[in-house]
Amino acid sequence: MTKILDVIILGAGTAGLAALREVRKRTENFLIVNDGPWGTVCARVGCMPSKALIEAANAFHHRTAFAEFGIHGSDALEVNIAEVLRRVRRLRDDFVAGTTKVTLDLGKRAMSGRARLVAPNRVEVNGQEWCARNIIIATGSSPVIPKTWNSFKQHILTTDTLFEQDTFPGRIAVIGMGPIGVEMAQALSRLGIDVVGFGRSPQIAGLTDPVVNVAAAASLTQEWPIHLCEKAELMERKAGFVVRAGDKEIIVDGVLAALGRHPNIANLGLETLGVPLDDHGIPPIDPTTMQIADLRVFMVGDVHARSALLHEAADEGHMAGINATRSIPICFLRRTPLAIVFSDPNIAIVGKRYDALDRDTTLTGEVSFSNQGRARLGQRNEGMLRLYAQADSGRLLGAEMCVPAGEHLAHLLALAIDRSLTVQELLRMPFYHPVLEEGLRTALRHLAAQLPAGSGSDLTMCEAFNLEALD
Amino acid sequence: MTKILDVIILGAGTAGLAALREVRKRTENFLIVNDGPWGTVCARVGCMPSKALIEAANAFHHRTAFAEFGIHGSDALEVNIAEVLRRVRRLRDDFVAGTTKVTLDLGKRAMSGRARLVAPNRVEVNGQEWCARNIIIATGSSPVIPKTWNSFKQHILTTDTLFEQDTFPGRIAVIGMGPIGVEMAQALSRLGIDVVGFGRSPQIAGLTDPVVNVAAAASLTQEWPIHLCEKAELMERKAGFVVRAGDKEIIVDGVLAALGRHPNIANLGLETLGVPLDDHGIPPIDPTTMQIADLRVFMVGDVHARSALLHEAADEGHMAGINATRSIPICFLRRTPLAIVFSDPNIAIVGKRYDALDRDTTLTGEVSFSNQGRARLGQRNEGMLRLYAQADSGRLLGAEMCVPAGEHLAHLLALAIDRSLTVQELLRMPFYHPVLEEGLRTALRHLAAQLPAGSGSDLTMCEAFNLEALD
Repeated sequence: MTKILDVIILGAGTAGLAALREVRKRTENFLIVNDGPWGTVCARVGCMPSKALIEAANAFHHRTAFAEFGIHGSDALEVNIAEVLRRVRRLRDDFVAGTTKVTLDLGKRAMSGRARLVAPNRVEVNGQEWCARNIIIATGSSPVIPKTWNSFKQHILTTDTLFEQDTFPGRIAVIGMGPIGVEMAQALSRLGIDVVGFGRSPQIAGLTDPVVNVAAAASLTQEWPIHLCEKAELMERKAGFVVRAGDKEIIVDGVLAALGRHPNIANLGLETLGVPLDDHGIPPIDPTTMQIADLRVFMVGDVHARSALLHEAADEGHMAGINATRSIPICFLRRTPLAIVFSDPNIAIVGKRYDALDRDTTLTGEVSFSNQGRARLGQRNEGMLRLYAQADSGRLLGAEMCVPAGEHLAHLLALAIDRSLTVQELLRMPFYHPVLEEGLRTALRHLAAQLPAGSGSDLTMCEAFNLEALD
Repeated sequence: MTKILDVIILGAGTAGLAALREVRKRTENFLIVNDGPWGTVCARVGCMPSKALIEAANAFHHRTAFAEFGIHGSDALEVNIAEVLRRVRRLRDDFVAGTTKVTLDLGKRAMSGRARLVAPNRVEVNGQEWCARNIIIATGSSPVIPKTWNSFKQHILTTDTLFEQDTFPGRIAVIGMGPIGVEMAQALSRLGIDVVGFGRSPQIAGLTDPVVNVAAAASLTQEWPIHLCEKAELMERKAGFVVRAGDKEIIVDGVLAALGRHPNIANLGLETLGVPLDDHGIPPIDPTTMQIADLRVFMVGDVHARSALLHEAADEGHMAGINATRSIPICFLRRTPLAIVFSDPNIAIVGKRYDALDRDTTLTGEVSFSNQGRARLGQRNEGMLRLYAQADSGRLLGAEMCVPAGEHLAHLLALAIDRSLTVQELLRMPFYHPVLEEGLRTALRHLAAQLPAGSGSDLTMCEAFNLEALD
C-alpha cells in the first residue's frame, strides 16, 4: 500500500462509469476496479441487445397486419434467427465498445479483479490492499437462478446467455413475467418460438393497476399463453423436460429464467463497514446522497436492489461521484419515477404507482385505445391508460398504461408530473390530429369532468377544449 | 322570414360542428347550413384517409429493412393498391359517419344549401332569407388548381379525388411540397408508384430552418426525386403528358395537385358586411375572439386561410360558438403552435418557427439522429432536430425537426413551450433508456452548454445529468 487514493470505484458498469466521470473532473488520484467482462450490463446483456431483438421480432410480426392493409405474400416471409442474433451481437459489440473506451486511457488506474472491503476505507483487490478516502460500490447485479434448478442448467438461459445463442430452441418457457420476462417472451414468440409464460404474482411487467393489468394480459395472451399466480418448477419426465405450475405440466426445450436480478454483494465484505445490514445484506443508503450511513462509502446502481433502471443507475453514479469528491455531501432531488417495458403495446408506469395512491384523495381518469382513431388506422387499437390526480387540486400524480406509443406518452406525463402540472394545465397544450396523444387527452378530460368546479377557471372546466379565458 | 335566429352557422365541417356544439348548449334557436357533402374535410378527404393510406404505405415499405434484421422472402410481397384504397374508404366512411351523426337529430335546423350573406345579420339559403343575431362563417376551403391547368383536368388529382380512385397510375407528379404534398408523395412512392415531387419554394413541408430542411430533403429524396425552387407547368407532348419545371420535362400519367387550399368565399357575400376586405377577400378577424370587426359575425377554420389544422379549426369553432351566444365576446388565449407532417421521418414545427426568431436573443441546440442508439436498433437513424431558446433565460421558444417519432417529441416540446419551461427544467425530467427522447436530451444539453452560468443553479448547469441540488 503505497499511497492513499482519493476514490476507489468498485464496478465499471453504468453507475460506476457515471461516478468515474464526476471523479475525474475533480481528482486524478483514483482507481476503478471491475470484476468480469468490461462493458455495462445495459450494453452487454440488457437494454441494447434486448431492444435489438425486439426490433427484429416486431418487424417480423408486422406481417400479420399486412393482409388487412392490402399487402400479400407474407406467407413467404421467413426469419433466420441465427442472422437476427448475429445482428444483435454486432450492434451490441458496438455499444459495448462505446462504454469500454471510457476507461481505455486510464492505464493502471483501471484494474480487473474482484474487490473486497476490508474496512470502511480499505479494499483488497487481487491480493493487494488499497486505502481510499472514499469508496463507491457499484458492483451491479446478476440474474437470479433458483438453487433448486441447478440440475437443469443445460436447459436454462438468462439474459447473460440468451443473446450468445446461435439459434433458439423451438419451445421455450419464460419464467417470470416482470419487465424482462414480458419483453423477451413476446420477442421470442414473434420470432416463431413456441413460448409459454409463467408468473408467480398476478401482476404483469410490474403493473399495479388491476384494470391496466387485465388489459395487458388480454393483449399479450393473444399471441402466447401466460400462467399467472403459480410457482413454476422444473423437472425431467419420460416425455422430456417439463415446467410444472399448479396442475399444468408443459414440455419445453428450454427455459428463460427472468426472475429478477440479485445484488453482486457475495464476499464483498459489506459486514466490515460496521453498519447494520438488512435482510438482503444491504447497508442503509441515503437515496439523496447515495451515502452509506455516515461513512465515506457510497452504494449506487443495481447493487442496492432498489431498481434496475439505467437512467437511475447513471444518476446515482453521478451523485456518488460528486459527493465522494466533496467534504460535505450534497442532497439531490431524485427524478420522477419512470419505468417502461418495450412490449407491444408498450407498458409504462410514471410517477406514483396505483398501489401507492391514497384512494381517498385521488381521482382516476382512463381511456381505452380499442376505438382510438389513429390507432385504428395503424391496426394498433388496443390497450388501456389510467391517470391519477389529486382530487382537490387536479394535480397529476401518476399513470399506468399498456397502450401503443406508451413509451412516448409516458415521457410526456413524466414531464407533467415532474413540473407538478394539473389536469387543466395539460389540457391547455395543443393535441394534433390524428395522434395517439388524443387518447391521452380523453383520459385527461375524463379526469377534468370529475374535478370540483372551483379547481380551474370556469371556462377551462366547462369547455371540453379547455381554452383559457383571458377576460 | 318568420323569426329571428339566435345563430346561423354556415358550414358543418370541423369548425362549424365545434361551434354547433357550443351553440346547442345555450340556445335551440339556430340553423346550420352546409354546402356539398356533409362530413368534415378531415374525415372525408383530409387527415383520416391520408393517414390510412400512409399506414399501408409504411407497412409495405418496412420490407426494405427486413433483410438487415434477418427476415427473408420480402421479394414475394405485393401491394394491391385497389385493396389499399378500399380499406382507406371503409375507414373513411366510418369516420365520416361519426361526424355526420352529430347533425342527424337536428331536423329542419340542419339544411343543405349554399349560403350567401345579404347583410351583417341576414343570410340567403336556397332562395330563402334568414335573419340572425349572430352569424358564424365556417365554409372551409378547397384544393387549389391553377386555371391554366383546366385543359389537363383528366390528368389531375387532388385530395378530393385521390382516395376515390380504384387504383393509381404508374407515374405521378406531385406538385407542391407542402405538408400534404410531402405526405402523399412519400405514401404513393412507398406503394410502388413512380413519384416525382415539385416544389416552387426551397422549403419542404413548411420547414423554415434551413438545417432541418436540408436533412428532410436528404431523407426524403433517398426514395423519390424532388425538384425545388421551380414552377411546374403541365403540357402535352408527342411523347405524352409532361410536367415541365426549369429545364426538365418529365413524362407522367397523372398529377397530384398539392398547391394548398383556397377559402370557400366565392359568392359568399362578404362584401355586404361593410368592412374592408384584404387582398384575398378576407375581412379583419380578431384571433382571440374570432369576431369580424365589431360585427356579430364570426369567421373560423380554413375559410380565413390562416392555417388549415384540425385542432385549431376546432378551437376556433368553440370560441365562436361561445362568443356568438354571449353579449360581450370573451378573448381566448390561443394554443402553442404545433404542426406535424406524417412523413417518415416525421416533420414537425412547434412554437416559434426558425424564421420568426430574433436571432440576436436566441440560442440553438441541435441533434442529428444518424447515430442515435435506439434509432439505430430500429434502422430509423436519420434526421435532425433543432431547438430554439431565449439566450438570457434558457426558456424554450420553439423547435423544427425531421426525426423518427417526431410527432411524439413535438407534443412533449409543445407542452414545455406552453408552460414556458426552461431548458434546465426540461433536463430535470427522466429520460428512459434506450428511447428516442434521449436524442432530444442531447439537443437540450447542447443548448444548456451555451447558456450563461447564472441561468440555472450551478449544479444544474455543470452536471450533464442535471440533478437539482437541494442544499
